[in-house]
Amino acid sequence: MDFLSEKARRLTPYVAGLQPQGAGWVKLNTNENPYPPSPKVAEVLGCADVARLRLYPDGESADLCGAVASVYGVGAGNVFCANSSDEVLALAFQAFFSGKGNVVSPDISYGFYPVWAEMYDVGMVFAPLSKNFTIDPMHYEDTNGVVIANPNAPTSIAISLADVEQLLITNPRGVVLMDEAYMDFAQVESAVSLTKTYENLLVVRTFSKSHSLAGLRVGYAIGNEKLISGLRRVRDAFNSYPLDMLAQTAAAAAIKDTAYLKETISRIIQTRTSTIKALQSLNYNVLPSDANFIFMQNENAPAIYEHLRENKILVRHWNKPRIKDFLRVSIGTEEEMTAFCQTIKNYGG
Amino acid sequence: MDFLSEKARRLTPYVAGLQPQGAGWVKLNTNENPYPPSPKVAEVLGCADVARLRLYPDGESADLCGAVASVYGVGAGNVFCANSSDEVLALAFQAFFSGKGNVVSPDISYGFYPVWAEMYDVGMVFAPLSKNFTIDPMHYEDTNGVVIANPNAPTSIAISLADVEQLLITNPRGVVLMDEAYMDFAQVESAVSLTKTYENLLVVRTFSKSHSLAGLRVGYAIGNEKLISGLRRVRDAFNSYPLDMLAQTAAAAAIKDTAYLKETISRIIQTRTSTIKALQSLNYNVLPSDANFIFMQNENAPAIYEHLRENKILVRHWNKPRIKDFLRVSIGTEEEMTAFCQTIKNYGG
Repeated sequence: MDFLSEKARRLTPYVAGLQPQGAGWVKLNTNENPYPPSPKVAEVLGCADVARLRLYPDGESADLCGAVASVYGVGAGNVFCANSSDEVLALAFQAFFSGKGNVVSPDISYGFYPVWAEMYDVGMVFAPLSKNFTIDPMHYEDTNGVVIANPNAPTSIAISLADVEQLLITNPRGVVLMDEAYMDFAQVESAVSLTKTYENLLVVRTFSKSHSLAGLRVGYAIGNEKLISGLRRVRDAFNSYPLDMLAQTAAAAAIKDTAYLKETISRIIQTRTSTIKALQSLNYNVLPSDANFIFMQNENAPAIYEHLRENKILVRHWNKPRIKDFLRVSIGTEEEMTAFCQTIKNYGG
Repeated sequence: MDFLSEKARRLTPYVAGLQPQGAGWVKLNTNENPYPPSPKVAEVLGCADVARLRLYPDGESADLCGAVASVYGVGAGNVFCANSSDEVLALAFQAFFSGKGNVVSPDISYGFYPVWAEMYDVGMVFAPLSKNFTIDPMHYEDTNGVVIANPNAPTSIAISLADVEQLLITNPRGVVLMDEAYMDFAQVESAVSLTKTYENLLVVRTFSKSHSLAGLRVGYAIGNEKLISGLRRVRDAFNSYPLDMLAQTAAAAAIKDTAYLKETISRIIQTRTSTIKALQSLNYNVLPSDANFIFMQNENAPAIYEHLRENKILVRHWNKPRIKDFLRVSIGTEEEMTAFCQTIKNYGG
C-alpha cells in the first residue's frame, strides 16, 4: 500500500550532483571549494583534519544508516537519518499526513505535533488521555494516521508493545508514527521489531537523549522501505544534505558504543528510582516514569517552579488544562538530583 | 509592511525550554543527558572536549549571527542562520511566498526553486533569460515576490547592484530574495548594503562555497528585522535548533578569518581566468563568469561530459531546453584545471 500524501506523491524532488565514493576523481560538479577551510576552523574545533569539510556530506548518511541498521538488526534501506528527530518527524508529517484529516494524537503530548499539523495542513484529532494519564488504544481506531510519543512526554508513561500492535491492527490505512525519543530509558519494549511485520509503522528515535548528543542534532527513523523512500522523497524537496559530516561521524561512533549506552542508561534509571522515592517520602505524587524525566504533581507547581528557579534549578511547567499542577523534571546526575530534592524539601519551610 | 504569508501569520510556533547562558544552573528542563557522549565520539572527531554536546545548541545561533553581523556591519537582529542556505531558502519560501501566486524567478536558475514552489504552494512564474543568458529587470515588476540567484546558476552571470535596486523599486509588495551563494567570487557588489534601505530585501548566503564548508551545512540570511523574525517564526514551527554546536562554532571561526577568505577567493578567480582563456583558445564559448564555476558551450556537450567522466573528471550537464549544449564546471585547483583543459583538448583528438 502507498501511504504517501497527495502532496508528497505530486512532488518532483531536486536532483543533486553526483557524490562519487571512490578515490581519484577530479570533482568539478558541485561547485565545492578546492581549498581547505580556514585554519581557524581546525583551531576552534580542536580537530586535526577538517580539510574534508570543503566537500558536501553524503546526503543519504549511508555509513550512519548502516551503523543504526546493524544495531537494530534491520536493513540499511529501513533507516532514514536527518538533522534531529524533530526534522524526521516534520518530514514524516509532510510525507504521510499532509492534507489528510483524522490523524490522531493524545491531547497531552509533545508540543510540536499540533505545530507541525498546522504547518503541513494535517487535520489532527486529539484523543484524551485517561484520568491517570495513560493512552487507551480504543481511541485510535481506523484513523488516517497516529502519532504517539512512547514513552509519552511530558507524562513519562509508556504503552506496551502489545498495545502498539493493537494500534497497528486497528489502523491499516494510515501510518502509525511511534516517537521513541525516550524509549532507551523504558521498561517496555521498542516497536522496532514490528516494522518487519507492519508496513505502516514508522519508529522515530534520537541521539539527543540516551546518546548525550543533543548538541549535534541527529535523529532517525526505522520502517518499511516504502516509508523510508517516502521520507527521502520529501527530504529531497527540501534539503539534499540535511546532516553535516561531523554529525554523521560522531553519531555513528556513538551508536556503535553499546556498552557505554547501557552503562549511562542504567545510571540514569537508578537516579530516577531514588529521586522518585525521595519525592514520595515528601508526599509528592509522581507518575510512573519510563523516561529520563519525571512528572510530579503539586497544587503549588507554579510557586515551586519559581522557588527552584530562584535556587538556579530549571525545570518545566505548562500552564495548561489537566497538567498545570505538574512539573516535568529531567533526571540529572545523582548530585544534581540530591540538590533538587533538598531544594524541594526547603520549599515553604 | 508585513510580508508574512497567510500560513506563516496563522502559525503558533513551538516554544522550547529555556537555554540559560550564564554558569551555575542545574538544568533539568529539557531532558538532556547529564553524562558526556561516548568517548568514541571524541575519538572519531579527533577533538578533546565534546562533553558539551550533551546539551542542546543555541537555537538562535547568537554567537554566529553576531560574527556574521559584525563582518557585514549590520545588527545581530538582521541575521538568521540555519542548516544550509537551502534550509534558509526553504524557510523563506514558507514565510513569505506560501500560498501566493506571481512569484517570479528566471527560467534558468537553481533547480531547487521550482521544487520549493511546489512543496510550499507557491505559484511561481518563470521569466525567460535573454538570449545571452542575462536577467532583464523589466520581467520582474509588481510581483508578489522575486527569487534570483546572483550570480545566477548554472549560467555564472551576475546582475549589478543598480539592477537589484531597480527590482526593489518596482516590487514594493513582495519580498525580493537574492540568493548570493556565489557572490564572494563576483565583480559586482553584494546587495547586503541595500537591506538597510529596503525592508523587503532578503539576502541569502552560504558557508559552502567561499568558506570551504560544504560539509558543515551552514547558511544565513541578512535583512530587515521584520523579515528575520518571519524566518524565526517559521523555523520555530519546524525545528527549534536547526544548527548543531560544532557547525555554529566552526562557521563563526571561518567568517572571522577574512584574510584567508580573501586569499582563497583570489586564487580561485585567478584559476577561473586562466581556465576560460585556455578554453577560448580551444574555440569554446564560455559565458562571462562571476562565480566559482564556468558555463561552457559545445554542441557535443553530452559526449564531452562522458569523455571527462571516463577520465574521472566530474562536471555537470542538464538535458534541458536552451542549456543542453552547456557544461557547468566548478573551478578546482590550478592543477585540477590544467588536467581538465588537457582532457578537453584530447577530446575527439
